[in-house]
Parts: sequence; structure tokens; C-alpha cells
Amino acid sequence: MAAAAPPPPPTPVPEPSMGPSEDSPLGHPIFTRIRLATASDVPHIHKMIHQMAVFERLTHLFSATESSLTSTLFSPTAKPFYSFTVFLLEVSPNPFTDYVITDPSFTPLVKVINLDLPIEDPEKESFTTNPVHDISVAGFVLFFPNYSTFLAKPGFYVEDLFVRECYRRKGFGKMLLSTVAKQAVKMGYGRVEWVVLDWNMNAIKFYEEMGAKILQEWRVCRLTGDALEAYGTTD
Amino acid sequence: MAAAAPPPPPTPVPEPSMGPSEDSPLGHPIFTRIRLATASDVPHIHKMIHQMAVFERLTHLFSATESSLTSTLFSPTAKPFYSFTVFLLEVSPNPFTDYVITDPSFTPLVKVINLDLPIEDPEKESFTTNPVHDISVAGFVLFFPNYSTFLAKPGFYVEDLFVRECYRRKGFGKMLLSTVAKQAVKMGYGRVEWVVLDWNMNAIKFYEEMGAKILQEWRVCRLTGDALEAYGTTD
Repeated sequence: MAAAAPPPPPTPVPEPSMGPSEDSPLGHPIFTRIRLATASDVPHIHKMIHQMAVFERLTHLFSATESSLTSTLFSPTAKPFYSFTVFLLEVSPNPFTDYVITDPSFTPLVKVINLDLPIEDPEKESFTTNPVHDISVAGFVLFFPNYSTFLAKPGFYVEDLFVRECYRRKGFGKMLLSTVAKQAVKMGYGRVEWVVLDWNMNAIKFYEEMGAKILQEWRVCRLTGDALEAYGTTD
Repeated sequence: MAAAAPPPPPTPVPEPSMGPSEDSPLGHPIFTRIRLATASDVPHIHKMIHQMAVFERLTHLFSATESSLTSTLFSPTAKPFYSFTVFLLEVSPNPFTDYVITDPSFTPLVKVINLDLPIEDPEKESFTTNPVHDISVAGFVLFFPNYSTFLAKPGFYVEDLFVRECYRRKGFGKMLLSTVAKQAVKMGYGRVEWVVLDWNMNAIKFYEEMGAKILQEWRVCRLTGDALEAYGTTD
């Protein structure tokens, strides 16, 4: 495909107006949907986690397989919002008319966004969830309950927030994170928390604008690998 | 009790030797037990969380009640180790011979410790779980599963580790944290994580000696209160 001669560019045809003025630029609508991921989404989730590891230059720490993700994220007893939960962001050039099995605990959120420029997705084929309806995965957020003893309330901890490269800087990350925040409010939860690298000023600014506080004094402690395994054999 | 004249010190009587040498000092044995907490332990847990808030000078953030702790920590569907979990540390001057309802998922851990000096517990009456057998609560650890996408494995996040004042600096904190680490290894989990204040050098040294790494670059982000509530009403 990449080596084939590109087709001639189509003659620009003005689209019918949906805005208040006939003259207003319409941009390029993209239909978005946020829904609960299921086990059948694991191949896409696995690819995105790998891309995240590449982006963070941490592929040496990456050992997830599709099978290990399926058994740990989608075990039969795991209940969305009460255990590990994945929201998937899907996009399509068309309105969503496909049939999606909806978990009673979450109604998919559909929104149409007008972009100035169309998005060229070079990896679209690898991330298609429904080729007939031209639907692909653009990102995901993985979160799970945490707990505050002072509030005596659960909250959500966001482990991963990822938007595929060609979909970045369009508000999709905020859309995913806001959906987690909204779900927390809906369930009466007290907090949404995550971590950020201290040198990632763009991300920090973005989170502060969303209303988050950056806790400067706290450091994460981690017991893992051999140091953790050693506890399995000690008294 | 505190105002009464203290009894005359007992004449030192050498206890029968249990060690390799007849001359070795035996100290003061204290029997310890780590077990899963149940809803009936909430009054003690609530008091300890309050003491922790006082110690951290954060009582203005403390809003937990016994009832809110019971409904959030011990809901009928919450399964130990798969949701919020509390290990309770009990101590007694006598071997444990009481009947404890044991959850099939965790067999209580019993250990006898020899201390140089006996512990005077001024609040013993408020923390008794079994007055007949002279058993009281000395501390707790609250933890719950977290998840690493790179490992595709759950882990444990330790939200609170607390040892009552008169029981500190005797290895009980390490005993509670080690029990969580051991449980993680037993379940094939990949990590145990928690947070520490960056100026708390004693705690950092203690955690590093246990084999933990302090992640210096990461900062916790928190969305809470009005800033979180605002998401409940936005599109």
C-alpha cells in the first residue's frame, strides 16, 4: 500500500452547512465514542501499551502479552469500576450505527468534533475495531479504585492515559480523563489521582488547567523484582 | 489507674531458658498476630486513622466515620486482596488461644517477639479486641490492588501503615509491610507501592533498607473537592 502511487487528490467539494452561518468554515467532523473495553479489544490495547513503552523509552520493562493482559484485566470476576477498568476511545468519519454490547454500568459516550484538518492515520488498519463501519481505536485510559481513609471513600487511580500519535493535541486525552472524573462524581467517589514526570511541564500545565493539584512533597516507593521476590521466602 | 501508687517492682526471677545459653537474657515476650480485619474491627480502625490524622496535623481533612468506613471497606461484595483490604496487628502478653473467624484467603500469622523492656500501653482499654484473652490492636495496614500495564500484572498499593505510638520502633511496621509483600509474592503480583514524604528521611532509609526504590521523578496529581465535582456537571 505505501509503495503504490497515491490516487489523484479529490476535487474539493463544499460540504452542506450545519452551522449558524452558510459562510462558516465547517472543518472536518470526526465521530468519537468512549466505551468500556472488553477482552476482544486486548490486541489493540496491547499494541498501544507497547507504543507507550517505546515513547517512554521503557521497552526493556515491557513484558505484557495479549494473553497476560486478557487474564489479568478481563477475568470473569472483574467488575468495571470496582476493579481494573479500561475506557477505549474509538473514532470514525461516520456516525456510529454499529451494535455494541453495552455493559449496564456504563452507557457509551458519543460526541462529534469538528477539526480544522482531517486526520491521516497511517496505522488505521492495525487499529480497526469495525472495518465495515470504519471505526478505529484512537486511545485508552486504564484506571481502578483506590481508597482514602481520611475521606472513608474510594476514588479512581489512573494508571495509563494514552492517545495514539496522529490523534494527539486535539483534546482526546482530556476527553478520556474527564470521563473518568465524571464517573467518579457519579459514584460519589472522593478523588481521581495519577502520576506525572516532574520535568513534563506541558503535562503538568494541562493537568493544573483541568483543576488537579500536583503534590510536590510525596514520592512513590516501589518494591519489585528480586527485592520483592525475597519476601516470599523470608519469615 | 494512672494516679494510683505504682506497685513495688517485682523481685527479678530468672525465667526458664529457651535460648542456647542458660545465661542469655530472655527479655519480655509479646505475642503478635496479623489477621484480616472485619467490620467488627471498624471502631479500632477509625480511632487509629484519627490518631494518624492528628500525627500528620491533617485533622481538618479527616471526615471518616465508623459508618462510612464500614460501608466502604466491608461491603458484602468486597473480597480481601481483590479490593480494599486491612491487616490488623494484635498483641497480647499471652499466646493466642481465642477463636478467630479466619477468612479462607488468609491464615493469621502468629509470632512471638522478645522485647528488652515491657510495653506500657496507656490506651489499652480503648483498643482491646478480646478482654478475656488480653488481646489489643497495635496497628494496621490498608492496601488494595493496583495494576502495571508494562508487567500486565496486578500489584498492591499500600494506602496506610500505622503502628500505635507505644508500639513503635520495635519492627511492627516492617512486619505489617512484609506481610503485604509476602502476600503479593504468593499471588504472583509484580509490585508493592506506597508514597512517602520527601523530607521524612527516617522513613525513606527504612524503606530503602527493605529493598524499595524511591521514584524521584514522579509526582502525584490529585483532582478532588470542588475541582472534581465540577466534572459531574460538564459535558
